[in-house]
Amino acid sequence: MNPIFLLHPGDPVAVALADLSDGEALPNGVTVRGSVPRGHKVALRDIDRDGAVFKYGQVIGHATRPIAAGEHVHSHNLGMSDHTDDYAHGSLAKPTAYVPEAERDTFMGYRRGDGKAGTRNYVGIISSVNCSATVAHHVVREVERRGLLEGFPNVDGVIAITHGLGCCISNKNEAFAMLQRTIWGHVRHPNFGAVMMVGLGCETNQIPAMVETFGKPPAGSMHYLTIQQMGGTRKTIEACLEKLVSEVLPAANKARREPLPASELIVALQCGGSDGLSGITANPALGLAVDRLVAQGGSAVLAETPEVYGAEHLLTRRAVRPEVGEALIERIRWWEDYAAKLDGEINNNPTPGNKAGGLTTILEKSLGAVCKAGSTNLVSVLRYAEPVKERGMSMMDTPGYDPMGVTGQVAGGSNLLCFTTGRGSVFGYKPTPSIKIATNTPMYRHMEEDMDINAGTIADGEETHEQVADRIYREILRVASGGQSKSEALGFGDCEFVPWNISAQM
Amino acid sequence: MNPIFLLHPGDPVAVALADLSDGEALPNGVTVRGSVPRGHKVALRDIDRDGAVFKYGQVIGHATRPIAAGEHVHSHNLGMSDHTDDYAHGSLAKPTAYVPEAERDTFMGYRRGDGKAGTRNYVGIISSVNCSATVAHHVVREVERRGLLEGFPNVDGVIAITHGLGCCISNKNEAFAMLQRTIWGHVRHPNFGAVMMVGLGCETNQIPAMVETFGKPPAGSMHYLTIQQMGGTRKTIEACLEKLVSEVLPAANKARREPLPASELIVALQCGGSDGLSGITANPALGLAVDRLVAQGGSAVLAETPEVYGAEHLLTRRAVRPEVGEALIERIRWWEDYAAKLDGEINNNPTPGNKAGGLTTILEKSLGAVCKAGSTNLVSVLRYAEPVKERGMSMMDTPGYDPMGVTGQVAGGSNLLCFTTGRGSVFGYKPTPSIKIATNTPMYRHMEEDMDINAGTIADGEETHEQVADRIYREILRVASGGQSKSEALGFGDCEFVPWNISAQM
Ligand SMILES: [Ca+2]
Ligand SMILES: [Ca+2]
Ligand SMILES: [Ca+2]
Ligand SMILES: [Ca+2]
Ligand SMILES: [Ca+2]
Repeated sequence: MNPIFLLHPGDPVAVALADLSDGEALPNGVTVRGSVPRGHKVALRDIDRDGAVFKYGQVIGHATRPIAAGEHVHSHNLGMSDHTDDYAHGSLAKPTAYVPEAERDTFMGYRRGDGKAGTRNYVGIISSVNCSATVAHHVVREVERRGLLEGFPNVDGVIAITHGLGCCISNKNEAFAMLQRTIWGHVRHPNFGAVMMVGLGCETNQIPAMVETFGKPPAGSMHYLTIQQMGGTRKTIEACLEKLVSEVLPAANKARREPLPASELIVALQCGGSDGLSGITANPALGLAVDRLVAQGGSAVLAETPEVYGAEHLLTRRAVRPEVGEALIERIRWWEDYAAKLDGEINNNPTPGNKAGGLTTILEKSLGAVCKAGSTNLVSVLRYAEPVKERGMSMMDTPGYDPMGVTGQVAGGSNLLCFTTGRGSVFGYKPTPSIKIATNTPMYRHMEEDMDINAGTIADGEETHEQVADRIYREILRVASGGQSKSEALGFGDCEFVPWNISAQM
Repeated sequence: MNPIFLLHPGDPVAVALADLSDGEALPNGVTVRGSVPRGHKVALRDIDRDGAVFKYGQVIGHATRPIAAGEHVHSHNLGMSDHTDDYAHGSLAKPTAYVPEAERDTFMGYRRGDGKAGTRNYVGIISSVNCSATVAHHVVREVERRGLLEGFPNVDGVIAITHGLGCCISNKNEAFAMLQRTIWGHVRHPNFGAVMMVGLGCETNQIPAMVETFGKPPAGSMHYLTIQQMGGTRKTIEACLEKLVSEVLPAANKARREPLPASELIVALQCGGSDGLSGITANPALGLAVDRLVAQGGSAVLAETPEVYGAEHLLTRRAVRPEVGEALIERIRWWEDYAAKLDGEINNNPTPGNKAGGLTTILEKSLGAVCKAGSTNLVSVLRYAEPVKERGMSMMDTPGYDPMGVTGQVAGGSNLLCFTTGRGSVFGYKPTPSIKIATNTPMYRHMEEDMDINAGTIADGEETHEQVADRIYREILRVASGGQSKSEALGFGDCEFVPWNISAQM
């Protein structure tokens, strides 16, 4: 097995896949000087003092003294450069190398009345406020108990989308608009054949106000009622069940899968429970798969602003237009202000644990997260839960916390999710399926029932990034076409809708 | 029917229960001058200019011009007085008139090993982070599917307590301490016979760290495991089920109800979906029931700081010690600062809708909420989810939002909940049962399957406050003894655990 790993052809450093000892010969003929721990960087050639050090083909810092080929590269000889405010908006944007239309891939999806493409055909019972959450879940439970889905084989399931918010908040600020967008993005999600909204009646987050804000959905695609209007819990549940059987399920059951171009895919990118291999195996492999999807005319949604923090100038340089880069910087400034207000700190600096694992600079750390978005242009920067409108790679402003990030990405229209994990996150979501990619083989083996893809084969020397990227890309098409992901088989997705709230709860 | 309603014997104003017309004779012989709409105040005697106007036996403002008996009392002749910073800590505290011990009431409850008293005997599956929420719910589902409760008739049920928090937060600030307290207050709640905690493994909110913070619970009362340690979702569910059947359920099943003094009751007070009658019927009647409970040596927990705002000096005057009153003011200042930081506003001023309904000043409005805590001393002011330690009436700092408020109150040890509602909230909780008290008869009739008690009979002239208070008090003892509340019959309580988060989610 090759003891080192090169993340980009031109990089002057590689990552050790095992502990390297003094005098050991590397495949390129260089001899290791001193020792280099597993996961740390080794110099592949001499680097001058002040010379730029590249990893992932990107600058991660500058040499603070001359570095000889074979030396360990870390805090003792690598430092941060003054870089952070040269956003150089769009300076590295380049034309996308699209696959000719005639040669593009397809998947079997649902074409909705509004032109959007779904990968699933669920019916959603969506609550406007926590006060109606129990009713939504009981409707789902009764559908199962009474076997009401039996006559509707084309419906993937009736699911409850509930949450802890919706009242005792100002209805005038951005936080309220975010909640409305988050819920509405699910109401109008193409993975739903139809939805029913259930409210209490007196909540701040009024369902009719959402209809007014966003416009009346096409007839039959959305129904709503409130508990107070229906006269209580039991009557509301019965009314929902009656409406489901008489109208909603028969309508949703008419949907059929048909061949749709891969350009209709909007893939949410997420990582959770990262480890030292995340930025070396799973994330770069996912980045290559994203590049392939974008070449097909498809879309990907990077998120998790606090984890991008410190590498924002790399994204601004890939912005298709200066405004796109500027929108990202505006979001970065918002986070600095918000975190400071709440005595928090936005700071993605490597922790002592990261440093022990071989990460030297904030750039290197953030690059490990950002590289899952591949190398194409940044086509738009979205507010939380804002609909994806431009094809290509977008960035949505979300927290790094998995359920809140994914909830925003799905609200934006993501019809598939690729989730990399090192420690073993078991994340699944509805109505958007989640493909989980393990960064290392031991965890994959330990949790194989939960993991869809093992990218640890790269560190094991058994596969290249391109080979794993190919498996990810094919898995995207398979799952988008209705193939079950591991988290779907396990029944995840009834607890993971967690809207992000930035305002004071009164 | 008496057309007016007097909230306290000495009050110079009464509330109109129907529209009053010019010349109409009131029961006390006074003649109505002009018209007084339903829900508004009418003067029962002449009030001098600058004279204090009392309602609930409390000053709600001063006459801005002379008011004649029979006149409508509202914004045109009643204004706010300069009162707000005279906290007069403890000036109105008085000895509690306890019922002699030998004459005290009892209920049938569970005496736990640590001395605490439970009103239910559930087994809880509690998640440390959203990432383990699905596993917790699936354990509960499998218990039902496989009929695993069959041999354990003394266990009220196996329930999942899950939430949207637990990771990507600082573990150094008060917000994290709040989350730990909230979860631990449920882990150690006397309404649980035993609990199992389920974590993912890599979350910020580590289960062992909670055990270290709060101390090891008595053997057998708490078990925990993580998904990453067990090797995935299915194996974790099976391990939980095995532990439940072999150890947890048999242990919990040993609990038996026995007569316990009413002094062991800790009743959370909450209102949701309030209306114009909340402060006139249900809340004051609940206040009388609370006074009766406190006279028995029992405890009540007022909460909802934003709704107390503006009437805090009334509570500080009832403080048993100056520090207690000062602790309340410290919380009020915290809210002002917190709301300002998030571009919010803490302001309980009457809205145009409140004014149209007859509420003139902020004092009058807050009094309508505070009066559900009765008239006894304020014995302590608690942080969110802090354990109730002093018997009597305490105030816990929580948002007004029902699920977040109740989650904190239950974490503090509340073993029963009284919830007043005018619009018709259908709130239920587990493991603490909820008694819902309707403020008006039309809503009670409309939603009778959800409402436990109708306090609208007071406005109807059919019962006095004392009569309704007696029904509430007896219902408290009945439900505490295992009698089913309406929300329990309907199966509420699997979605309403919503911890309050005041920090930035990263
Ligand atoms: Ca992450
Ligand atoms: Ca994440
Ligand atoms: Ca939920
Ligand atoms: Ca309220
Ligand atoms: Ca409330």
